[in-house]
Amino acid sequence: MSTPISSELIEVAVRVKEASYVLASASGEQKKAALEAIAQSLRNHKDEIVQANYTDLERGRRSALTNTQLDRLMLDERRFAAMVSGVEEVASLADVVGEVVNGYVLPNGLKVQRVRVPLGVVAIVYENRPNVTADATALCIKSGNAVMLRGSSQAITTNVAIGEAIAVALTSVGLPGDCVRVIKDTSREGAIEFMRLNGYIDCLIPRGGPSLIAAIKENATVPYVLDGDGNCHLYVDRDCDIEMARNIAVNAKMQRPGVCNALETLLVHEEIAPKFLPFLARDLKGVEIRGDIETFNLVSDSVPATEEDYETEFLDLILAVRIVKDLDEAIAHIRRYSSGHSEAIVTNDLRAADRFKTEVDAAAVLVNASSRFVDGNQLGLGAEIGISTQKLHARGPMGLEALTSVKYVIEGDGHVRL
Amino acid sequence: MSTPISSELIEVAVRVKEASYVLASASGEQKKAALEAIAQSLRNHKDEIVQANYTDLERGRRSALTNTQLDRLMLDERRFAAMVSGVEEVASLADVVGEVVNGYVLPNGLKVQRVRVPLGVVAIVYENRPNVTADATALCIKSGNAVMLRGSSQAITTNVAIGEAIAVALTSVGLPGDCVRVIKDTSREGAIEFMRLNGYIDCLIPRGGPSLIAAIKENATVPYVLDGDGNCHLYVDRDCDIEMARNIAVNAKMQRPGVCNALETLLVHEEIAPKFLPFLARDLKGVEIRGDIETFNLVSDSVPATEEDYETEFLDLILAVRIVKDLDEAIAHIRRYSSGHSEAIVTNDLRAADRFKTEVDAAAVLVNASSRFVDGNQLGLGAEIGISTQKLHARGPMGLEALTSVKYVIEGDGHVRL
Repeated sequence: MSTPISSELIEVAVRVKEASYVLASASGEQKKAALEAIAQSLRNHKDEIVQANYTDLERGRRSALTNTQLDRLMLDERRFAAMVSGVEEVASLADVVGEVVNGYVLPNGLKVQRVRVPLGVVAIVYENRPNVTADATALCIKSGNAVMLRGSSQAITTNVAIGEAIAVALTSVGLPGDCVRVIKDTSREGAIEFMRLNGYIDCLIPRGGPSLIAAIKENATVPYVLDGDGNCHLYVDRDCDIEMARNIAVNAKMQRPGVCNALETLLVHEEIAPKFLPFLARDLKGVEIRGDIETFNLVSDSVPATEEDYETEFLDLILAVRIVKDLDEAIAHIRRYSSGHSEAIVTNDLRAADRFKTEVDAAAVLVNASSRFVDGNQLGLGAEIGISTQKLHARGPMGLEALTSVKYVIEGDGHVRL
Repeated sequence: MSTPISSELIEVAVRVKEASYVLASASGEQKKAALEAIAQSLRNHKDEIVQANYTDLERGRRSALTNTQLDRLMLDERRFAAMVSGVEEVASLADVVGEVVNGYVLPNGLKVQRVRVPLGVVAIVYENRPNVTADATALCIKSGNAVMLRGSSQAITTNVAIGEAIAVALTSVGLPGDCVRVIKDTSREGAIEFMRLNGYIDCLIPRGGPSLIAAIKENATVPYVLDGDGNCHLYVDRDCDIEMARNIAVNAKMQRPGVCNALETLLVHEEIAPKFLPFLARDLKGVEIRGDIETFNLVSDSVPATEEDYETEFLDLILAVRIVKDLDEAIAHIRRYSSGHSEAIVTNDLRAADRFKTEVDAAAVLVNASSRFVDGNQLGLGAEIGISTQKLHARGPMGLEALTSVKYVIEGDGHVRL
């Protein structure tokens, strides 16, 4: 269990920790200036970064990456521009550090405040997308955190080039270049060492698929926040606006099927199913419907759903369907299969809406709205480092606040305890 | 790594999870009534509980527990009364569940609220003190959480007796007895299984010493919150009220040396040390002073401090001392040795106070006040499940709020994403 940690990694970690102290005391103005300088430096170094990306793509093609993998790796003109403007958008957000979360004076005169502070050093482990290097940097710097970035070996040349452009910018505004460090060891052993850097990493955030999440759950000893899966449900209640239910189901399933807040399983009240499902099936062009026997009776080209279908986040044009006899059965199904991301109901029944909001345990519960709204930008957080399905620290879309902690500041005038 | 989990433990976990759904929807009135019934039931079952404790103490004596261990195990008249009144105090606190943390309406008309909700199932792992069984139950029930309690084998008879009194009370107010379950398997393997009950335990909270904490860091795969050590410092600045500094140092070190917010290392500005340390040493009667060479020059009966002394949470009448040349050196020392619990400064210098508050990274920073105030009751939280030195989820004294999460509740009128 006690993986020895390479002295090289420790050395980097010590430097990032030192830099984090400087950044934690930096003013909002300074952090804003740093992000603006980073955006400009990325533009100035565009040729080198694009060239580096080309090197990664070439190597990826030779090592037979799939087209999807190559697509994730590619930083084209449009994506480069989006990456740079993403940094600028984060620069313009309000500063969260220093916010007094609450404050009061105790009967003995002690003044107590809880003040929002940076976490310190944030570590990001991610897969092929090189834009994460800049996106995560922007959110971490804005929230006063130094950051260690460990991307995949496939994207290492691009990530290093982006990291160099960032370091130049940091130095130009008087901040230590070590506020942002791209980790060059991308071996599997290196990843595990990285997850066990206790005392140096204040929070680890993985951005990647199930195998990365599993590796973190098994190996990480540093604190972490998980960006979770979305096995999202929509329950269409007996008493509802059928037209609204059709629109919401179509939107949640089809508007962008490959994302975590897309609909995966539809639950329909048995009394409304005959008036609803056959019409919905026509709207869901190109979507494979996997349903129970009652669904098959209403939608003849549906296929039988297995237990596994109800457990699966398809991220594809596939929809699991189940007809339920009432709200209780819908809630029981959701409790059994939900990943705790986003769960929605369409209903006109006030009591059903109230029960659904209270009894369904998820990061977000929605009434008469598409689950596609559960996203940091849509909900007005300005930016998003991920969507948490855990209950501790941060739940739901994570913005800058999720990258902070709170400190008690207690001021007295010689107060001692009796 | 994949410890198989006993079917008996899973069966209990399933029942507690089911009960947690009932409790999560219970009203504040119902939870208050439950705690009042628990207090009454503990009184009614006092004889059985005391008898059970006698059994544990007898076995403990035979198995050669130390006097300290036996003392922790003992539930005498006074402790029994304190345990019962503790439950009543928690009953009278305000309900935290249902609080709207924030809420707003988006430009598209979607209504968004973040609402405080219970975590679900909380698990407590603790050592000999049997009063934790009732204390933790009270905090969990009040915050709407079901709870699994795993105490030590030494206290098992007492814990089971307390658990039975609690179950009777829960049933009497119409709540499932499974809201609170004392785990009877107290083997080491059982503890590890318990730490890996993913999907059943929403938050694990250890109440115990370093070996328990180490076991959790190594084995736990469920989310946890640690109640941390306190290697607390006091820095006496050049420009300060010497009388105040003496009072605060004496209070922080001597008022109750065995607790986590007691003073362990004193840092003194070199210019004030000659006017301060010799007098302080006289005040600290019975305290062994372990200092650097400069301290020895001022306090002749001090002994040399080792590196290890500066790292140690003595929890005893021992004080490490170091003379520093300025605030920077004091902050650097604290950064190196602090466990991030409570750090204090005595100063009249506004800029020094500001720098200390900003640059020292701890759950609590204090200006001109004793670190002994860093405690849930002293800070007005009403009750405390522990003091967190971690930065995620909860930091500093943890009250009822630390046992909750937040849920996004999003209400629309047929809203779909464009």
